[in-house]
Amino acid sequence: MIFFEVKKKDEKSRARLGLMQTAHGQVHTPAYLPIGTKGSVKSVTAEELKFWGAEMILANTYHLWLRPGDALIHRAGGLHKFIGWDGPIFTDSGGFQVFSLGEKRKEGEHNLVSADPVPVLKEISEAGVEFRNELDGSSHILSPEVSIQIQSNLGSDIALVLDDVPGLPAGKNRIKKSLELTLRWAARAKTHFEKIKDNSINPNQHLFGIVQGGDSEELRQKSARELQKIGFEGYAIGGLAVGENAETMYKVLGFTIPDLEEEKPRHLLGVGYPEQILRAVSLGVDTFDCVLPTRNGRHGQFFINRKSGGYEVIDITKKQFEEDFTPADNTCSCYGCTHHNRAYIRHLFQAKEPLGIRLATMHNLRFYLDFMEKIRRAIEFDSLAELMENYKI
Amino acid sequence: MIFFEVKKKDEKSRARLGLMQTAHGQVHTPAYLPIGTKGSVKSVTAEELKFWGAEMILANTYHLWLRPGDALIHRAGGLHKFIGWDGPIFTDSGGFQVFSLGEKRKEGEHNLVSADPVPVLKEISEAGVEFRNELDGSSHILSPEVSIQIQSNLGSDIALVLDDVPGLPAGKNRIKKSLELTLRWAARAKTHFEKIKDNSINPNQHLFGIVQGGDSEELRQKSARELQKIGFEGYAIGGLAVGENAETMYKVLGFTIPDLEEEKPRHLLGVGYPEQILRAVSLGVDTFDCVLPTRNGRHGQFFINRKSGGYEVIDITKKQFEEDFTPADNTCSCYGCTHHNRAYIRHLFQAKEPLGIRLATMHNLRFYLDFMEKIRRAIEFDSLAELMENYKI
Repeated sequence: MIFFEVKKKDEKSRARLGLMQTAHGQVHTPAYLPIGTKGSVKSVTAEELKFWGAEMILANTYHLWLRPGDALIHRAGGLHKFIGWDGPIFTDSGGFQVFSLGEKRKEGEHNLVSADPVPVLKEISEAGVEFRNELDGSSHILSPEVSIQIQSNLGSDIALVLDDVPGLPAGKNRIKKSLELTLRWAARAKTHFEKIKDNSINPNQHLFGIVQGGDSEELRQKSARELQKIGFEGYAIGGLAVGENAETMYKVLGFTIPDLEEEKPRHLLGVGYPEQILRAVSLGVDTFDCVLPTRNGRHGQFFINRKSGGYEVIDITKKQFEEDFTPADNTCSCYGCTHHNRAYIRHLFQAKEPLGIRLATMHNLRFYLDFMEKIRRAIEFDSLAELMENYKI
Repeated sequence: MIFFEVKKKDEKSRARLGLMQTAHGQVHTPAYLPIGTKGSVKSVTAEELKFWGAEMILANTYHLWLRPGDALIHRAGGLHKFIGWDGPIFTDSGGFQVFSLGEKRKEGEHNLVSADPVPVLKEISEAGVEFRNELDGSSHILSPEVSIQIQSNLGSDIALVLDDVPGLPAGKNRIKKSLELTLRWAARAKTHFEKIKDNSINPNQHLFGIVQGGDSEELRQKSARELQKIGFEGYAIGGLAVGENAETMYKVLGFTIPDLEEEKPRHLLGVGYPEQILRAVSLGVDTFDCVLPTRNGRHGQFFINRKSGGYEVIDITKKQFEEDFTPADNTCSCYGCTHHNRAYIRHLFQAKEPLGIRLATMHNLRFYLDFMEKIRRAIEFDSLAELMENYKI
């Protein structure tokens, strides 16, 4: 079974149609991966996700490691069985959550009543990232090997190596040191992956490297070259969507992607708005994960199609929708848009009725999955430029 | 169209099979009505409720009156259209919430961060119940006429008259005064109902009286007789499940129901556990509403069938289920029981994932609706006594 095949290349851009084949099924790319942080895509079922066209989901290693624990999930028969999703699963390394949640904690931004395990960063060393879990006071080291071991216990279809994540803007020296550490970690991760792979709950797991290098062309190219020497089955592009502007992100994608092997899949971590996804597709990205549809949905934000082309985001909790008896998005065939109107959904949010969040999440996921379908069709029928025009790119 | 017909009477008890026909469809009785307090049965869709066999739901007049307001719902085309449920709807008078929430507030039990409008009881007078809404400081009088007007604006299929609710135990004098007030209110409600009925959004709305009288046989009989003189299309039995023990409730049902017209439906407000429902059916009750399946579900409690007969309630958040990879209820065909295990559902509750509450709510509603189906079949096949034996009644 070939893991990834490029089925068609766009003539005017670097966009491509691809097919990924895993032990748990296929993924047609470009694809958006709904996020099931703690083993559940907020408020929706696996059956619903499949019905709307989701083929692969992303789960967060950090959260599952600390609760309920990768050992328990392993005893349950792996993550697919534990969460009742039999399609492909992508897991991250856990590093990003330690850094991002840890940094938030330092800035005093963290919500202490959160149900999530809270990391307090202690030290980043050659060994790995050391942090304390505030919920129970326990200390942990997330090393490249530990990350691989957890992901092996989870049995995801795609595993990711641990990386050091410098925020942008950052000095070139900081980025360079971080990159070198990331590359040494990548080599250790690969070695450990090969060592334990055959005894894994999913021997068909695929390991992705992660390209870093900040906004430096030289460092990004170095990262891409060195990772290819180690040898991975795909690449995540990291260190973006961490505070830089979108143009910087496109520039970095523009000089990073040509250095990656053409026949391997490319995942862009944590991106993004529809126009960012579309632009990144045109620069050669195959898969995306992003919390926007689910997280913004929880706050009453609906992604809706504009008649004139493109999309807009409306905040359904606003007073202006109090007596708006039209569907949230009258071009949409999701349950909420075909059964309910804006006034009712606004009421659900005002009254803190959980159905409101569910309807918003359903709608936004459907919007994103439909949007990816539009992108795939546009590549197939050579009309990606027109689609980009529609989204003012 | 005949509103209610008794299709079969049980020979050994007062249980009966009935068919209720409303402008929005049929209800096979004995029936359990899921509660959609604020216009939504917590976290589930109308489509799901129908699929599981719910035929009628109950919505709370008090909550909808204060938010989003009965005028807005009227402009939306009525409650059925507003909430996207085209089946029958039963609305209460609003009085019970003013009393029960108002009393909780006095005892300092009320959760101030609640999303619900909070009543502070000011005065109960001949005119009605006066209270202040703490959310916005506004004062309101809920009178028999106001309650009927609100329910007319909602356009429910069954409306209920306003009553005064004395908690049990209470002195006979307190109960008697309360009953007399309730009867005067009932007459006013009926008059107002007849006056505005033809201009209602649902001219086929049916008005139920409410039998009060505490635990006094004399007062319950008086209540039943006087209500029949006023003339209603059905009866709710009120003032029970307000703190008395279950035996008192059965005793009261035992001497109240024979005084009600045989051919009219009887609803028992706010009851209860399965064995209470079954016992009340045997005493002649036709319909029930109760928050147990939804509210207890939100706290991780699952109603499950016992192999040996009857049922039990398990708290899935308990440590003992941490590695229990069996379904919550292996006799159940609901989504959660056929797709997930206890360990995963426990994890969802621990991680405060909204899917946990949704799975629990789905399961418990399914359990209650299946239980009513068992009761209807038992009456049909003359095996109600055996069913009661199973539930140790």
